[in-house]
Amino acid sequence: MNPLVSIIMGSTSDLPVMEKAAKFFEEMEIPFEMNALSAHRTPDAVEAFAKDAQGRGVKVIIAGAGMAAALPGVIAASTTLPVIGVPVKGSTLDGVDAVLSILQMPPGIPVATVAINGSLNAAILAMQMLALSDGSLADKLAAYKLGLRDKIEKANAELSEIHYKFKTN
Amino acid sequence: MNPLVSIIMGSTSDLPVMEKAAKFFEEMEIPFEMNALSAHRTPDAVEAFAKDAQGRGVKVIIAGAGMAAALPGVIAASTTLPVIGVPVKGSTLDGVDAVLSILQMPPGIPVATVAINGSLNAAILAMQMLALSDGSLADKLAAYKLGLRDKIEKANAELSEIHYKFKTN
Amino acid sequence: MNPLVSIIMGSTSDLPVMEKAAKFFEEMEIPFEMNALSAHRTPDAVEAFAKDAQGRGVKVIIAGAGMAAALPGVIAASTTLPVIGVPVKGSTLDGVDAVLSILQMPPGIPVATVAINGSLNAAILAMQMLALSDGSLADKLAAYKLGLRDKIEKANAELSEIHYKFKTN
Amino acid sequence: MNPLVSIIMGSTSDLPVMEKAAKFFEEMEIPFEMNALSAHRTPDAVEAFAKDAQGRGVKVIIAGAGMAAALPGVIAASTTLPVIGVPVKGSTLDGVDAVLSILQMPPGIPVATVAINGSLNAAILAMQMLALSDGSLADKLAAYKLGLRDKIEKANAELSEIHYKFKTN
Amino acid sequence: MNPLVSIIMGSTSDLPVMEKAAKFFEEMEIPFEMNALSAHRTPDAVEAFAKDAQGRGVKVIIAGAGMAAALPGVIAASTTLPVIGVPVKGSTLDGVDAVLSILQMPPGIPVATVAINGSLNAAILAMQMLALSDGSLADKLAAYKLGLRDKIEKANAELSEIHYKFKTN
Amino acid sequence: MNPLVSIIMGSTSDLPVMEKAAKFFEEMEIPFEMNALSAHRTPDAVEAFAKDAQGRGVKVIIAGAGMAAALPGVIAASTTLPVIGVPVKGSTLDGVDAVLSILQMPPGIPVATVAINGSLNAAILAMQMLALSDGSLADKLAAYKLGLRDKIEKANAELSEIHYKFKTN
Amino acid sequence: MNPLVSIIMGSTSDLPVMEKAAKFFEEMEIPFEMNALSAHRTPDAVEAFAKDAQGRGVKVIIAGAGMAAALPGVIAASTTLPVIGVPVKGSTLDGVDAVLSILQMPPGIPVATVAINGSLNAAILAMQMLALSDGSLADKLAAYKLGLRDKIEKANAELSEIHYKFKTN
Amino acid sequence: MNPLVSIIMGSTSDLPVMEKAAKFFEEMEIPFEMNALSAHRTPDAVEAFAKDAQGRGVKVIIAGAGMAAALPGVIAASTTLPVIGVPVKGSTLDGVDAVLSILQMPPGIPVATVAINGSLNAAILAMQMLALSDGSLADKLAAYKLGLRDKIEKANAELSEIHYKFKTN
Repeated sequence: MNPLVSIIMGSTSDLPVMEKAAKFFEEMEIPFEMNALSAHRTPDAVEAFAKDAQGRGVKVIIAGAGMAAALPGVIAASTTLPVIGVPVKGSTLDGVDAVLSILQMPPGIPVATVAINGSLNAAILAMQMLALSDGSLADKLAAYKLGLRDKIEKANAELSEIHYKFKTN
Repeated sequence: MNPLVSIIMGSTSDLPVMEKAAKFFEEMEIPFEMNALSAHRTPDAVEAFAKDAQGRGVKVIIAGAGMAAALPGVIAASTTLPVIGVPVKGSTLDGVDAVLSILQMPPGIPVATVAINGSLNAAILAMQMLALSDGSLADKLAAYKLGLRDKIEKANAELSEIHYKFKTN
Repeated sequence: MNPLVSIIMGSTSDLPVMEKAAKFFEEMEIPFEMNALSAHRTPDAVEAFAKDAQGRGVKVIIAGAGMAAALPGVIAASTTLPVIGVPVKGSTLDGVDAVLSILQMPPGIPVATVAINGSLNAAILAMQMLALSDGSLADKLAAYKLGLRDKIEKANAELSEIHYKFKTN
Repeated sequence: MNPLVSIIMGSTSDLPVMEKAAKFFEEMEIPFEMNALSAHRTPDAVEAFAKDAQGRGVKVIIAGAGMAAALPGVIAASTTLPVIGVPVKGSTLDGVDAVLSILQMPPGIPVATVAINGSLNAAILAMQMLALSDGSLADKLAAYKLGLRDKIEKANAELSEIHYKFKTN
Repeated sequence: MNPLVSIIMGSTSDLPVMEKAAKFFEEMEIPFEMNALSAHRTPDAVEAFAKDAQGRGVKVIIAGAGMAAALPGVIAASTTLPVIGVPVKGSTLDGVDAVLSILQMPPGIPVATVAINGSLNAAILAMQMLALSDGSLADKLAAYKLGLRDKIEKANAELSEIHYKFKTN
Repeated sequence: MNPLVSIIMGSTSDLPVMEKAAKFFEEMEIPFEMNALSAHRTPDAVEAFAKDAQGRGVKVIIAGAGMAAALPGVIAASTTLPVIGVPVKGSTLDGVDAVLSILQMPPGIPVATVAINGSLNAAILAMQMLALSDGSLADKLAAYKLGLRDKIEKANAELSEIHYKFKTN
Repeated sequence: MNPLVSIIMGSTSDLPVMEKAAKFFEEMEIPFEMNALSAHRTPDAVEAFAKDAQGRGVKVIIAGAGMAAALPGVIAASTTLPVIGVPVKGSTLDGVDAVLSILQMPPGIPVATVAINGSLNAAILAMQMLALSDGSLADKLAAYKLGLRDKIEKANAELSEIHYKFKTN
Repeated sequence: MNPLVSIIMGSTSDLPVMEKAAKFFEEMEIPFEMNALSAHRTPDAVEAFAKDAQGRGVKVIIAGAGMAAALPGVIAASTTLPVIGVPVKGSTLDGVDAVLSILQMPPGIPVATVAINGSLNAAILAMQMLALSDGSLADKLAAYKLGLRDKIEKANAELSEIHYKFKTN
């Protein structure tokens, strides 16, 4: 079974953030792979990975990194696959450094950036891309979206349990 | 000819930013449509657009907006197509308001955010998604990437024309 | 008893912030309702709510949300009732993302924004609006304001209990 | 004819920003007054104004100020009328100083803050408050909102005039 | 004994920050007073205080406040005594709101701003002002400064106790 | 005639900002001196200046600098005279770098910081300090303050000249 | 044994941050010294240190400081040795104040700035400078770099231990 | 003549910023080379450059880039030569994106960051590194530093030409 999505993280310390993506693919039954590669500490491995990914059948790459988060952009430099960047919050600056390092790519080399620590959204976005040519995934996405709606509606129902004298619902 | 990509902008004042995407699709011969719709001023039109897009054959949506840029997220709320958000720089705050309004989407509803005023990258990203199931687009993307490299190399060659006494190249 | 104020939150995780508003209305004996609706996860419910509120006798809407907080603006898009936005502090960025997403509304569609996590002030502001046509509420507001003054004065009296050799009051 | 809204600005240099509010009230035929008062340079006049406004029949106060913009909060301290604050962009910091000085009011004393230089939205918000007890104003607001929609739709129509070979609308 | 310095805080919750100033005056044997007054909740008391301070022999005012910290500026508006502002860090925004609300005073009404939570420096600055016409205070300041130097030198001596094989001091 | 105030600037490019202080002292007939000294380029001159100032009769030092604005703090390190810091806006970062470099002094060594480019306020603050022991300066300050009030009142009068149909003052 | 590198910190409270540099030099067998000196509290000692360092054989200076971190720049002002600045995160502002105070040096006096709390990188950078004229250090650096790569590769191997049903590596 | 310093820029549009470094080396008679290479558009060329530089006799690398400025870090990943990063101000965000992308390098791979657009300081810093093993460069640096001092002193002399009635120098 070939991986359709490749999850890369700059350091295994990013795993608690990035595993939400893995769990989503698991739930959606989408084959994926997961590796720790660093643009600054294993540049050759990153380059090799980026150049080979398409040939190995990978369709979308999700790259999470913190601080001066060069990883998503460096991967994007060596592939024409869509690259989704996840800014990971570090011990200072609340993730702003990672956001700007990933988001502000120069013209020609895009990275699809999601919210700070937003690896779940990265995974959903990857699935949306895959669903463009796979109707069954599109159906699963639609069902997932209904599930989100249901959760809010259930939560709302719980709110109505809270009784105040002047609350009217 | 059905549009594959739909470019939406929150106001026609965003056109100078967003037309770079249009020109890219023109160059790449990718059919697209372009509309001004506002999450705050024409909410019904936005909702109708988002719900119909997939049925009309649109594959990817690019939405550009400034200030409290709700447009990309509101479209993403009503479709499972991938939505690419372009933060447009306004007259204050240098685009930071638009970045955060587009990037910081809650879990479940991703928007693929690109750089401030980065509509060209939005278009390339859209094409990368389309290329996942269209090999001819993948080839065009690879050629485009080589073109970027060539431009830098030509520019570099010009740098070597600048002569200083102690410059050695 | 019809609700005069509707408190909306983007997620029930915002309840600890938003319940200060509920408690204030309880104390002031102002009928209100409270719901969890999400601009991104239940867009149809939000739209239905916003379009019906005025007809149901609601006078003011308070909407709290975090991150890319589209909720207040999206409600404001579909009603002419005054909408008060409460930016809710999330796990990153200290609430700045919510502030800018709520505050920086485009010309034509205002949202009355209050401080980060400032749901009590949102409730007072709502009451100030109601008091414009209800003298008894105006009287209650004046009394509440005197209470604030008294609290500071009592606190000040306690400061005078702290004795230092060179402190003269 | 009594003013229903009072527009205050911290300095006449704020007039180019604040006059959009005046023009809106003119268009809507809502009686208003307009004064320059400074929390820092004419504190007594500000206090006298804030204490008298309600008695003179003023319903809503709009206060615009830049830099350490204490004016809206100081007025709010001496009245229970709703106060709308307009952060005015100064020569440095892009209006961020004014936003935080107006928005971050302590519990008990709200200021309804709008976007940087957002005096038009301040005026619309004031009218929304007045419309709570004046049906004719509510009708005008609804009409104004339709006008906003029409403007976007007309703009959108113009977009369709732009012809590209691969543009399909 | 008349107070020479008046310490004002916007809320008694600021006491843990502001008491460092009190302790410094105690140590330096400078008579002071300490009160909680709020620009937004007790505006009349603030105004009365500011107008009377000079007549009561107060020479310098230290005002600490958080969030939209109008207190120092509002006091400065009603006195020609020097006012020192202490931005107090609140529960969001890390004190930046208070810094800008205190620092960015308009031309004509200065507030001498010190670091976030910097009440000790506010007290030293007040003493420097008093020392301009009191030689004995100038001597105490000089001695205090030597004490700072000595503390660093002692700390440095402790650093030399740390032994590493390649550390040479 | 001994200078009572010393104006220091980090570079003569700061003169357009700092000369407002000079003009204020000229108007108030307060003897002053003005020099360009750099903490980074002429450290010995800065140190000599700071150590000699008090002995030469200088009472207050105003130091303006941009970027990594070490000048005010470095002067404060070598004198017990009050030092007022003026953050000067540079070509990037809108003066924020200078604000933080001047404001965030460590405990023990205060700098009285004023607004970005706020040299006029620095001069007024210096005069407030001098006025603590010179009644004639206190009188001049009071008169200056009345002048500020009068200017606003005159400006306000001009506002009343603007006629709109629905403007009532 | 002469120290080749001098580690300076503005306060011994910076030791937990700065000791990573010391441990690196220990591991690399590079002689160093370590002192606490403050630009604001022991300016004479800083100046004496900066002027003497080169004569004592010191090659590189690492200076760590927080808040208005003048120390690295002030040292750079009095030596032509390369000075590396380490911004230390303080109790507010997340280290941004220190970054700007160290980074934004005026033309003529550089400080080589590293990441917030980045003392390990400061030490590596110092060693890179020393290695320019010492081949054995260059070899150690190359080995150290391989070690970084190996650590990531080992971490990556651990990732492959995590089993999911749809994970393919 | 071998280049001792290599100046790299991410785009020839950075030339107006980076040429100050070239002019400094020209003036100091230090052989250098200058190239445009992009981490995102010519990744292979960057890698080849970084791996070959040391072997060609280059001692120090200066890399300037804007936006998501990965260039300095990516070069540092493939060499043990010291790399100096120059954040270049782009059309939005005032250079903050480039600062954070360059400064916030992860442990193990330092980049010596200088001020926004600070290429002159980058060049001086490079020369300081070269001077560690070349006494004649150390002498030139000392002379250059005296020149900076002289410029300020001359500027100061010009300040004394400005006559005010109450200016005493």
